[in-house]
Amino acid sequence: MAVIFWLDLFGTAVFAASGALAAGRKDLDLFGVLVLAVVTAIGGGTLRDLTLGLTPVFWIERPVYLWVASAAGLLTVVLTRTALLPARLLPLADALGLATFCVIGAEQARAAGTGPGIAALMGVMTGVAGGLIRDVLTGEVPRVLRRELYATAALAGSLTTVALLELQAPPSLAVWCGLLVALALRLAAIRWRLSLPIFTHRP
Amino acid sequence: MAVIFWLDLFGTAVFAASGALAAGRKDLDLFGVLVLAVVTAIGGGTLRDLTLGLTPVFWIERPVYLWVASAAGLLTVVLTRTALLPARLLPLADALGLATFCVIGAEQARAAGTGPGIAALMGVMTGVAGGLIRDVLTGEVPRVLRRELYATAALAGSLTTVALLELQAPPSLAVWCGLLVALALRLAAIRWRLSLPIFTHRP
Amino acid sequence: MAVIFWLDLFGTAVFAASGALAAGRKDLDLFGVLVLAVVTAIGGGTLRDLTLGLTPVFWIERPVYLWVASAAGLLTVVLTRTALLPARLLPLADALGLATFCVIGAEQARAAGTGPGIAALMGVMTGVAGGLIRDVLTGEVPRVLRRELYATAALAGSLTTVALLELQAPPSLAVWCGLLVALALRLAAIRWRLSLPIFTHRP
Repeated sequence: MAVIFWLDLFGTAVFAASGALAAGRKDLDLFGVLVLAVVTAIGGGTLRDLTLGLTPVFWIERPVYLWVASAAGLLTVVLTRTALLPARLLPLADALGLATFCVIGAEQARAAGTGPGIAALMGVMTGVAGGLIRDVLTGEVPRVLRRELYATAALAGSLTTVALLELQAPPSLAVWCGLLVALALRLAAIRWRLSLPIFTHRP
Repeated sequence: MAVIFWLDLFGTAVFAASGALAAGRKDLDLFGVLVLAVVTAIGGGTLRDLTLGLTPVFWIERPVYLWVASAAGLLTVVLTRTALLPARLLPLADALGLATFCVIGAEQARAAGTGPGIAALMGVMTGVAGGLIRDVLTGEVPRVLRRELYATAALAGSLTTVALLELQAPPSLAVWCGLLVALALRLAAIRWRLSLPIFTHRP
Repeated sequence: MAVIFWLDLFGTAVFAASGALAAGRKDLDLFGVLVLAVVTAIGGGTLRDLTLGLTPVFWIERPVYLWVASAAGLLTVVLTRTALLPARLLPLADALGLATFCVIGAEQARAAGTGPGIAALMGVMTGVAGGLIRDVLTGEVPRVLRRELYATAALAGSLTTVALLELQAPPSLAVWCGLLVALALRLAAIRWRLSLPIFTHRP
């Protein structure tokens, strides 16, 4: 599944870019940009590894994730300066990153021996926790908790992967199907502004 | 100690409800409600397990906690819609949840071999960390850090449990006494608005 | 390296004081002051131990860190009341704490078997994560992400220590040189208001 590895690095880069852009809205210094880029990119996988007990966590074992996230964060700063960053591409890239992260998270949890329900949850957590930490660090109520079908797309992808693994499908097939489901749902949500009902309650 | 297990699930449900209500004040979508409910309910125990090195964490080993928290979060949304939720019951239920979580946390830390001081601290952390994460995610300065005798009640309960365990009391007795102490102190604090002094300092 | 141990406790006390002062700006109660003091003091080392898989984390193994942090937090409250706290000393003490934490973090990661790049990163994380959590809990965008050469000083110190360890220098020499580099850079940054460029981007 070498393609999945490259997609994983691609997702890491995309999430790092979203972290760097969030830093730009809060006037952080260059080091703050780096921190926010890296934390957004590796936060979800770190939480997954910590709760599963898979330590040292993945980016200690394979530091390439850190270097990719750092490089992508700095590159984002440069590109916004030279106005070469096509703003409309970012949500599409982010959707691909989300889809990749959620199925990888689900597959790794399953491989670590968790039950299917927990594996699906781990997929969602891997996909959304980085963005959640990014928003907390920049003082925002996390957007993933109130945006059009974001975590829901991750859940759909995770569940697809987990269900196919349960049915003894080959891992690569399970991962690709889950990835496509999450990607399709997220892109549809962006295109047609699909969203879950909002819960408002002020006693 | 089957009763303690049921109380633990009850505390999980109550904390999930408080998370869902906090989500309702920030207009999160239904998935955001679920996340906030679950994180509030399991955050304290997760931090306890991670720092003690008890991984995979408890809700991976026993997913029933996740399902109870999710169900309680969704039920809270339904009940606020149908106006059946008696607002005055929630603080009482929350006090029972806090009391249960803190003594369970202390007892489990002791069973994991920590010293009595650390065990008492683990009890407090198990009781208050979920609410603390809930408030950070919704952009509030954590209420547990400035409310009437909240964490202090957890500390009193934890210390009682730990002291009795030190005196070779049977675990169930230690847990019940600690639970009653925490509950009584928290209810007294609600009734008579007892609180610690506030520290204000602006140089 | 007994001196390093005492410096580590000193850094713990200083970071706890900065946590207590942050609590004073948000009108927390005395327990909230304690929590913020302790979390600021041990947050970085806790994150380091969790990601490295060194559990139970250091303050469970050696609770003296908790007692020092608690005592320093309470002492800070008393000193601000009696006007004995020289405001200009705190940044200097904080610089010493930062320098100590970052080289200890780097050295411990290296001892745990990580590569040099990860060890340098662990040093930075140990130095800055506590302050970062402090700011998140009090609802601020973390100052370490936008202040004059703060994390950068930690990085310089960590890299120095790691480089000397790579060159087979004795650990105590590596730690002391890294400490002096971080301290000098941080003090210079305070004195001459050195800072990294700010990244501002609002599409």
